[in-house]
Amino acid sequence: MFTYKTKVRMHDTDAAGIIFFANQFRLTHDAYEEFLEMLGSSIQKILRKTNYFQPIVHAEADYKAPMFVGDKIDISVTVGSIGKTSFSLLYTLNRGKTLVGTAKTVHVTVSQKTGKKIPLPTSLRRALEKFKSSSR
Amino acid sequence: MFTYKTKVRMHDTDAAGIIFFANQFRLTHDAYEEFLEMLGSSIQKILRKTNYFQPIVHAEADYKAPMFVGDKIDISVTVGSIGKTSFSLLYTLNRGKTLVGTAKTVHVTVSQKTGKKIPLPTSLRRALEKFKSSSR
Amino acid sequence: MFTYKTKVRMHDTDAAGIIFFANQFRLTHDAYEEFLEMLGSSIQKILRKTNYFQPIVHAEADYKAPMFVGDKIDISVTVGSIGKTSFSLLYTLNRGKTLVGTAKTVHVTVSQKTGKKIPLPTSLRRALEKFKSSSR
Amino acid sequence: MFTYKTKVRMHDTDAAGIIFFANQFRLTHDAYEEFLEMLGSSIQKILRKTNYFQPIVHAEADYKAPMFVGDKIDISVTVGSIGKTSFSLLYTLNRGKTLVGTAKTVHVTVSQKTGKKIPLPTSLRRALEKFKSSSR
Repeated sequence: MFTYKTKVRMHDTDAAGIIFFANQFRLTHDAYEEFLEMLGSSIQKILRKTNYFQPIVHAEADYKAPMFVGDKIDISVTVGSIGKTSFSLLYTLNRGKTLVGTAKTVHVTVSQKTGKKIPLPTSLRRALEKFKSSSR
Repeated sequence: MFTYKTKVRMHDTDAAGIIFFANQFRLTHDAYEEFLEMLGSSIQKILRKTNYFQPIVHAEADYKAPMFVGDKIDISVTVGSIGKTSFSLLYTLNRGKTLVGTAKTVHVTVSQKTGKKIPLPTSLRRALEKFKSSSR
Repeated sequence: MFTYKTKVRMHDTDAAGIIFFANQFRLTHDAYEEFLEMLGSSIQKILRKTNYFQPIVHAEADYKAPMFVGDKIDISVTVGSIGKTSFSLLYTLNRGKTLVGTAKTVHVTVSQKTGKKIPLPTSLRRALEKFKSSSR
Repeated sequence: MFTYKTKVRMHDTDAAGIIFFANQFRLTHDAYEEFLEMLGSSIQKILRKTNYFQPIVHAEADYKAPMFVGDKIDISVTVGSIGKTSFSLLYTLNRGKTLVGTAKTVHVTVSQKTGKKIPLPTSLRRALEKFKSSSR
């Protein structure tokens, strides 16, 4: 399991005093970016040195407890499913031992040239398989 | 049906050249804010003049087509389900006749004092019922 | 003078209950994007159909009064100075008759190929001159 | 001197492929939040446990080099000037040995009750004096 440590920032919050819901997605994408680097890839590499993009085609989140500015959050990332052209990531957000939220993103591989779906690169598939969630 | 017109801004996009996925949620929340005002309420009124908050406890989105800076987007809002303490909103995003995305948010009513769930205010329930989706 | 009408959104605010300072810059950039379209250009056109970028090399803002979610804001845009390769824009933000903030951005023209400064395109220079501020 | 280490995230960038100018301010505010914590205060403490706010009344930034997604950035924070009710912070952003930007924010102390300016708390003044810039 991969865990990314972050902190809720003032700009993540809104006038209700807690994190703005869309910004929890921003935090989970930060975790995804670190996860990719840990796998030996990166957003920058994908954009510049490959022939594919991996846009998010579905995202969902549950909000279990309010998060406040300054809160330290651990985001664990596991791999949900792996398909021919796509994969899903599952995120669990904890503040200490308190579960504050969960999220899921589905990424599909498309050709930078044509915009059409193409198979998930083999090396990425192998890397993702090592982080497959057993429980969800 | 309520429709909110908006435009994709530079700050909504990312280095892949299209809207950053979390920012589609930001746009749908803008639509929700206008929807609330149309119903005679507003975020500002809820924060300052009521005894409740309505935090989002679940959010999900599908991304159907890339959105670019300058794109004019129509976001239609309908009411999905209405429960004792909560309701859901359904969003459809179109650029002209092209469906570019959908989203759903679930809002629960909690007491500003205790943070506990409380019944949906009757006036809001009645207002929401008029916008109930027939199809989803 | 060009005026852009906008509204402070929940995601613009933070836990202090007012607009997060960096988001005033976001609003002024929205005004700049509309200003560009009014001049017959656009961010999208510049990115896709010209050989230049116009990155911001300096930005500044003053905050005169707090802005709250739901506030309707008028942003007027005028042209400050026009140089060989650069120009500056001046923004005034009003809520009704109350001045809530001002801002300035300096944009420089660079070649998309080399990243080096190149002269401001003549057509843009002419367009900008019509909006030159007399007072600042 | 205080230094905060951060990384440019996908959501910080825009369709021009580099950081969106307003998001450099967001990064410097993150550095300010960490600086406050190092001084023994925090945004959360100020909001909840003091009688004052410290809104930003002026902000400015220079952009020296483009920043890309994944870039590791060191932000150093020093104190510019300290007045009766206000203080300024100076930020220098480096990617390795490359200066990529600078920024300045001016914060004024206001009463949470009245919104009027009040003197800078003595303890904060003393803490800030230790980080006073000698060079600017």
